[in-house]
Amino acid sequence: MATEAQAQWVLTATGRSPTNIAVIKYWGKRDEALILPVNDSISVTLDPDHLSATTTVAASPAFPSDRMWLNGKEIALSGGRFQNCLREIRKRARDVEDEKKGIKIKKEDWEKLHVHIASYNNFLTAAGLASSAAGFACLVFTLGKLMNVNEDYGELSNSKGSGSACRSIYGGFVKWCMGKNDDGSDSMAVQLVDESHWDDLVIIIAVVSLKQKETSSTSGMRDTVETSPLLQYRAQTVVPGRILKMEEAIKKRDFESFARLTCADSNQFHAVCLDTSPPIFYMNDTSHRIISLVEKWNHSEGTPQVAYTFDAGPNAVLIARNRKTATLLLQRLLYCFPPQENDLDSYMVGDKSILSDAGVQSVADIEALPQPPEMKTPNQKFKGDVSYFICSRPGAGPKVLTDESHTLIDSATGLAKGV
Amino acid sequence: MATEAQAQWVLTATGRSPTNIAVIKYWGKRDEALILPVNDSISVTLDPDHLSATTTVAASPAFPSDRMWLNGKEIALSGGRFQNCLREIRKRARDVEDEKKGIKIKKEDWEKLHVHIASYNNFLTAAGLASSAAGFACLVFTLGKLMNVNEDYGELSNSKGSGSACRSIYGGFVKWCMGKNDDGSDSMAVQLVDESHWDDLVIIIAVVSLKQKETSSTSGMRDTVETSPLLQYRAQTVVPGRILKMEEAIKKRDFESFARLTCADSNQFHAVCLDTSPPIFYMNDTSHRIISLVEKWNHSEGTPQVAYTFDAGPNAVLIARNRKTATLLLQRLLYCFPPQENDLDSYMVGDKSILSDAGVQSVADIEALPQPPEMKTPNQKFKGDVSYFICSRPGAGPKVLTDESHTLIDSATGLAKGV
Repeated sequence: MATEAQAQWVLTATGRSPTNIAVIKYWGKRDEALILPVNDSISVTLDPDHLSATTTVAASPAFPSDRMWLNGKEIALSGGRFQNCLREIRKRARDVEDEKKGIKIKKEDWEKLHVHIASYNNFLTAAGLASSAAGFACLVFTLGKLMNVNEDYGELSNSKGSGSACRSIYGGFVKWCMGKNDDGSDSMAVQLVDESHWDDLVIIIAVVSLKQKETSSTSGMRDTVETSPLLQYRAQTVVPGRILKMEEAIKKRDFESFARLTCADSNQFHAVCLDTSPPIFYMNDTSHRIISLVEKWNHSEGTPQVAYTFDAGPNAVLIARNRKTATLLLQRLLYCFPPQENDLDSYMVGDKSILSDAGVQSVADIEALPQPPEMKTPNQKFKGDVSYFICSRPGAGPKVLTDESHTLIDSATGLAKGV
Repeated sequence: MATEAQAQWVLTATGRSPTNIAVIKYWGKRDEALILPVNDSISVTLDPDHLSATTTVAASPAFPSDRMWLNGKEIALSGGRFQNCLREIRKRARDVEDEKKGIKIKKEDWEKLHVHIASYNNFLTAAGLASSAAGFACLVFTLGKLMNVNEDYGELSNSKGSGSACRSIYGGFVKWCMGKNDDGSDSMAVQLVDESHWDDLVIIIAVVSLKQKETSSTSGMRDTVETSPLLQYRAQTVVPGRILKMEEAIKKRDFESFARLTCADSNQFHAVCLDTSPPIFYMNDTSHRIISLVEKWNHSEGTPQVAYTFDAGPNAVLIARNRKTATLLLQRLLYCFPPQENDLDSYMVGDKSILSDAGVQSVADIEALPQPPEMKTPNQKFKGDVSYFICSRPGAGPKVLTDESHTLIDSATGLAKGV
């Protein structure tokens, strides 16, 4: 491999992976090292136009070590998660030949080749927005492309650095099966339906706080497994039934069942966090207010219009039945949580067209919104408690980006661009 | 009974009952009408000098109906709880003779005699401070005295209008046994140890909010029983073991075990509230901050100095190992939660002498408190988030107040005094 001519080449691949939000939650590992969960989980993949990670991986015989840049900043690769990922993918690597560039890499060469990785999120790495899921999914996907790994995505998702990352390997609704084998070989993601199956759902995320979360989900779920008396009961007795019902609800597009299960499972996940010693609080008063707002509205309508779910942070992920209910929801959210700054444009990101659907063109329009009829207490307004909203929808899985403009690594220097 | 002369008399009795705070929580009834719980619970009785209810009950043939005044305001007696209480006590009533006043009441006369009740709390009826426990305990106790009921307190506590009230019938540490019989005849309170057994404990209550709680505990626990998948597991599998360990910890004055069990059970109670549909939130961000403060300090000391427990509201009940740890705790609390107003006297009620033990004579002294070493982030101060503190200790059970000055009903008019 290491001829003089070849020493100069840099081979790159670029991919984009979506993030996902669990509607039946993953919380707790049965095997820490292999990242095997204590129960199945189900998630919805978010439109990568709104929330995704883009990653370029580069290999070159000129690289003396593995290196990584995240959002333009170099980070240490000493952590076990990245190294495990790399090792697993290297094991599955196959021959690669790029005739144009005159590159020939044999299967066994990959063990000796170092990689450079540059990754970028198109959303702020906010607490609990599953940024690591998108990031790790993208890393695995793009390394797999670079190294010509010929495996189905489900098994590929097995070589993961973040548990929930494996659910970002598909679009639509995805189930991560916990598996039974000790070696984790049957713990993998399967797609339940693709993103076109239930395409009238609209997802609004209320970003409640940009503070770093206090408890990382990795250490938090370890503490829960070790100390919560309720977790095993949840994992073994409650979740299996919910998984079956959720699969059914998704297949039938039964929003009522979907919403009830989603809300109940989010609350139960936070309940086992609270049952941990010391207790873990991810939701705050603003999260509680958003839940109350949704519960009151759903109750007044007689049937659920919106489901809520919260990951390991205070941000609310709200899934509306359709575009119409999403606009009604947005009016309620904006009424209660008007922006701190007089800047509507940065207060709604993603699909901004929902604003005009809701009849809101300016901050003055927000101030003029009438009190929703189901709210009994007047002027329940909490300006500044929400940082901004994201409007999205169920979306597609990872894809390769072939356009050179997306490449995050300079193939001349082998370094992250613009650093 | 109804001679002309007798028609004028008013017979009164006055009693005072403490409130109690559960350290192993009661949440959920197995029988709504009989108020039978789904699990045993254990509480500590608070010193009635600081937190108690005083009740005068009066009977007279001149009263055309039952009436009640709470904190000086007449309230409707139509609710089932009061009527059940009255009916149960009337059933157990016996002959009463007051030679001085020339009153003679036969057992069977009590069914026809109406009563007037005046009750008063020596603390604000704050959300989640178990005011109804003290109130109902006092009502049952004082009615029992008036009607010469000859039963042991445990069985008397059976005729209750509020579940946790039965634990206020004794001082010290009290266990409410759930019982097995369908008629609730074996569901009663027993004293584990009296208030002198573990008298170095100091209790500091942080009153976080005076807003009325949103979810009453009666409807809240009904919703939990009906919708929480985790409650039955808690009641049947987790609590029985904790009850045994808690009894042991109390008997041995083993503060470490006591504190771990108390905190874990408070958190699990709030976890099943969260697992309810719709979810119930009693704790708020201030409650969470107090928990973090205690957990961090306990962790830094290597062994628990303070236990926390929260009832159906945001107020923190903090149980310190002894006077010394209580003063250290108070310094930490005052550092994080300085008073809004420049009025120290109303910011600490109950045993105010703890302030001078903590070296605090003025609001300026609070501002001068150094940051506790275990707090890593500087200036974590939340002025105004705590309304006031109460300092108390484990205390005695109910007692009869014979001094006329305590009587809340005017024996001439039969009406509440000062109304």
